[in-house]
Amino acid sequence: MTVYDQLMAHERQTQLLASVAERLGWDQETMMPPGAADQRGDEMAALELVLHARRTDPQIGEWLAAVKPEGAEQAAQLGHVRHSYERAVKVPARLAEELARICSTAQGVWAKARAEQDVAAFLPVLKQVLALKREEAACYADSGHDLYDGLLDGFEPGETGAGLAAMFDRMRPRLVALRGAILDKPAPKGLTGHFPKDKQLALSRELAQAFGYDFNFGRLDLAVHPFMSGQGADVRITTRVDESDPFNCIYSTIHEVGHAMYEGSVSPALRMTPAGRGVSMGVHESQSRIFENQLGRSPAFADWLFGRMRDTFGEAGAAEATAFARAVNRVRTGYIRTEADEIHYNLHVMLRFDLERALIKGDLEVADLEAAWNDRYQADFGQAVDKPSNGMLQDVHWSAGLFGYFPTYTLGNVYAGCLHKALRAELPDLDAQMAAGDMKAATGWLRDKVQVHGGLFTPRGVIEQAAGHAPDEGPLLDYLEAKFGALYGL
Amino acid sequence: MTVYDQLMAHERQTQLLASVAERLGWDQETMMPPGAADQRGDEMAALELVLHARRTDPQIGEWLAAVKPEGAEQAAQLGHVRHSYERAVKVPARLAEELARICSTAQGVWAKARAEQDVAAFLPVLKQVLALKREEAACYADSGHDLYDGLLDGFEPGETGAGLAAMFDRMRPRLVALRGAILDKPAPKGLTGHFPKDKQLALSRELAQAFGYDFNFGRLDLAVHPFMSGQGADVRITTRVDESDPFNCIYSTIHEVGHAMYEGSVSPALRMTPAGRGVSMGVHESQSRIFENQLGRSPAFADWLFGRMRDTFGEAGAAEATAFARAVNRVRTGYIRTEADEIHYNLHVMLRFDLERALIKGDLEVADLEAAWNDRYQADFGQAVDKPSNGMLQDVHWSAGLFGYFPTYTLGNVYAGCLHKALRAELPDLDAQMAAGDMKAATGWLRDKVQVHGGLFTPRGVIEQAAGHAPDEGPLLDYLEAKFGALYGL
Repeated sequence: MTVYDQLMAHERQTQLLASVAERLGWDQETMMPPGAADQRGDEMAALELVLHARRTDPQIGEWLAAVKPEGAEQAAQLGHVRHSYERAVKVPARLAEELARICSTAQGVWAKARAEQDVAAFLPVLKQVLALKREEAACYADSGHDLYDGLLDGFEPGETGAGLAAMFDRMRPRLVALRGAILDKPAPKGLTGHFPKDKQLALSRELAQAFGYDFNFGRLDLAVHPFMSGQGADVRITTRVDESDPFNCIYSTIHEVGHAMYEGSVSPALRMTPAGRGVSMGVHESQSRIFENQLGRSPAFADWLFGRMRDTFGEAGAAEATAFARAVNRVRTGYIRTEADEIHYNLHVMLRFDLERALIKGDLEVADLEAAWNDRYQADFGQAVDKPSNGMLQDVHWSAGLFGYFPTYTLGNVYAGCLHKALRAELPDLDAQMAAGDMKAATGWLRDKVQVHGGLFTPRGVIEQAAGHAPDEGPLLDYLEAKFGALYGL
Repeated sequence: MTVYDQLMAHERQTQLLASVAERLGWDQETMMPPGAADQRGDEMAALELVLHARRTDPQIGEWLAAVKPEGAEQAAQLGHVRHSYERAVKVPARLAEELARICSTAQGVWAKARAEQDVAAFLPVLKQVLALKREEAACYADSGHDLYDGLLDGFEPGETGAGLAAMFDRMRPRLVALRGAILDKPAPKGLTGHFPKDKQLALSRELAQAFGYDFNFGRLDLAVHPFMSGQGADVRITTRVDESDPFNCIYSTIHEVGHAMYEGSVSPALRMTPAGRGVSMGVHESQSRIFENQLGRSPAFADWLFGRMRDTFGEAGAAEATAFARAVNRVRTGYIRTEADEIHYNLHVMLRFDLERALIKGDLEVADLEAAWNDRYQADFGQAVDKPSNGMLQDVHWSAGLFGYFPTYTLGNVYAGCLHKALRAELPDLDAQMAAGDMKAATGWLRDKVQVHGGLFTPRGVIEQAAGHAPDEGPLLDYLEAKFGALYGL
């Protein structure tokens, strides 16, 4: 066995065990009886201990020092191993353990504080999490490196906080102008009616299949917060149901199908290798977003969906197709990121990005976070936060230690904009296909241009190859202005 | 940390990882999408490799040599560790791997051969399995030890093939005489009617709870072959549904609840220790059998169930309670072990026990197995096997390498007989309670006398303590003669 083969054999076993851990996580959110939570915590911790030992095994360092890669694919594989190994060994075991422990506690404290609208109860543990995350960031921050960038690098290798900030600054004026023009127009109506759970789930299964999802390699279940879990031949999705708002279920499903198609479409030859998964959070989100928004919320697809809704529910919640498409694309000022329309969503992300960057840099204290959030929300959204669960307590991320994650959502939107523009250029009949519920050409294009490559290229690299140019925010903004301009008669 | 504490810490992590493996197994049989089977095989193999390394870690041998147990509980814990470690290290890694591989293949070959009634297709791989199992048995067979006993010891420590054979020889005449007397009487009717799946499952959930099952620590799902999976705070059961025969669903559920109550009722202080689980297959089966048969098929409980069936289905499948109790306890000659009544079941087990013992000893060749099975079935059951799936291809056990497992089913019945006699003596109102659907006193007695102890005592030891005498087959046979004598007017 060559050094490369030995290293890959080690990585394969690690990936398989990580896949087991992911499956346990799925079980926890979908199937696990509530009384098993503590035992599951112990089981997960035992498995994480095994994974941590494998990921920081000094033998990896020796293999990396000795290995001679042959060709681009081996170089890409080794790049992932090196990135992961170097990050893992920089963090002392004591710090990694403490972080895992505090973040587990913090999520429980956060959930209770959110339910009770009690910011003060959350701040002490958030302060602990932040202190440990800053310590972790310092481990990555080799000479002159920004603390925030060290954390961001865990989710989106190659990006910097400064680079994203500059892009967000360029995006903001056009988003704000578009939002203003829309809000000056009469608000479109939402759907009315009752949409039974079983029918929503049956329709969601059909939509998942229309977007290419194969139930031979996955399943659809209910979860409090929809998510996708798995890789390769076992990619499972979840959704949720609100019987007065079928879009919640439908668009959560389509979104998670985008993630699942990415993980399931990576070339089989790459499965259980370091390059065998989606390459970054941003590119992952580009797939879920383009499925959900650029395709799923397009007027052409909405037209087809209108018919399927009438077939399914005996009504579609709107009197005619145009009103339905407007309901699908309703723009409203709101408190909650996960319920936001395509325009406001990015403003929600920018708010969080600026605040978490300031926290990590040390420019903002935890004690001042609520005031900072509320001031910023007032400034950006033109209304006051009415309660903490609609403000700084709404997201789980910070309690889970996920600083550096938020900006990847908007980066995903930007990437989706680039991919959508290229897709439109190459598929001139796309609207006609979508109006017939036929998504095969669009999902096939994404599979062949992006998904199949897994981690063989950098995040920006894979988008650049697919789009034909270095990614930038222009196509997303052009798309939003064109689509909402037409829908709202701007 | 003392040597004992170090050893227990190691064992705890191993148990937690074994619990993860068991959860994956549950997922595989209930939730996993079919296309994920190969990937799951790789995931399980990766986890088994970790478990095997932990179980054969030479450090365990050093700890065992150095440890000084204090008190009976520590001695019991160390007994389990020593038993498991010594068995594990006696088998060369090469043989363990080969067995895992061949048995995995053999189960697929068996399933196909059974579906196609093709014995010849199964024999070559069964021959390979048998050769490896005999090799494995030889590893355990220290001076003068019987080959079969080495395998049996993996399921039922303390038992020998000769001891079980002698007990089965004592049981056979009374079972045969009772069966003959019953078959001379007019056959009782089975249920008639249609019993919708959803209602069967709802009733089964209610019955599970009546037998003490707490859905806060478990769940009920469908599986092709019902099973229980888990331990401690997460014990899940499965059942299956036949819309013309509700007993299939109902009694599978009650049976699996017996297993689940055992695993879930082990003292919390013992969880994730070597003594934290059911102590043997025989004692496990005693719990599932007493739940299913001595309690669940008692005329008193059947009386209550008759009423619940009428409430649930609008009919109970029988005109009145006595006919219903006879249907619950219908005795019929049949081919299939898992569908057999309480009397025939043991004759099915004895047939398999004698054949597998002869195979392992070298007294019977695989090539002659089908003829031996068919001759024996004709002699014991008075009819000819009509097709291999009703004969030697019906059970998965041998293809899975589970030689030595079958006799624990009848041993479980014998133990259940002893426990039931003691239970009746201590709970004089049991019939009145069961006729009201109140199982609390009975299940509480089993919990306190048997289940809570986990592996603190030997299998025979825990039965002896609960029953007040060394276990023997008498109480089971007395119970069968009394119950069926009354039902059939013998």
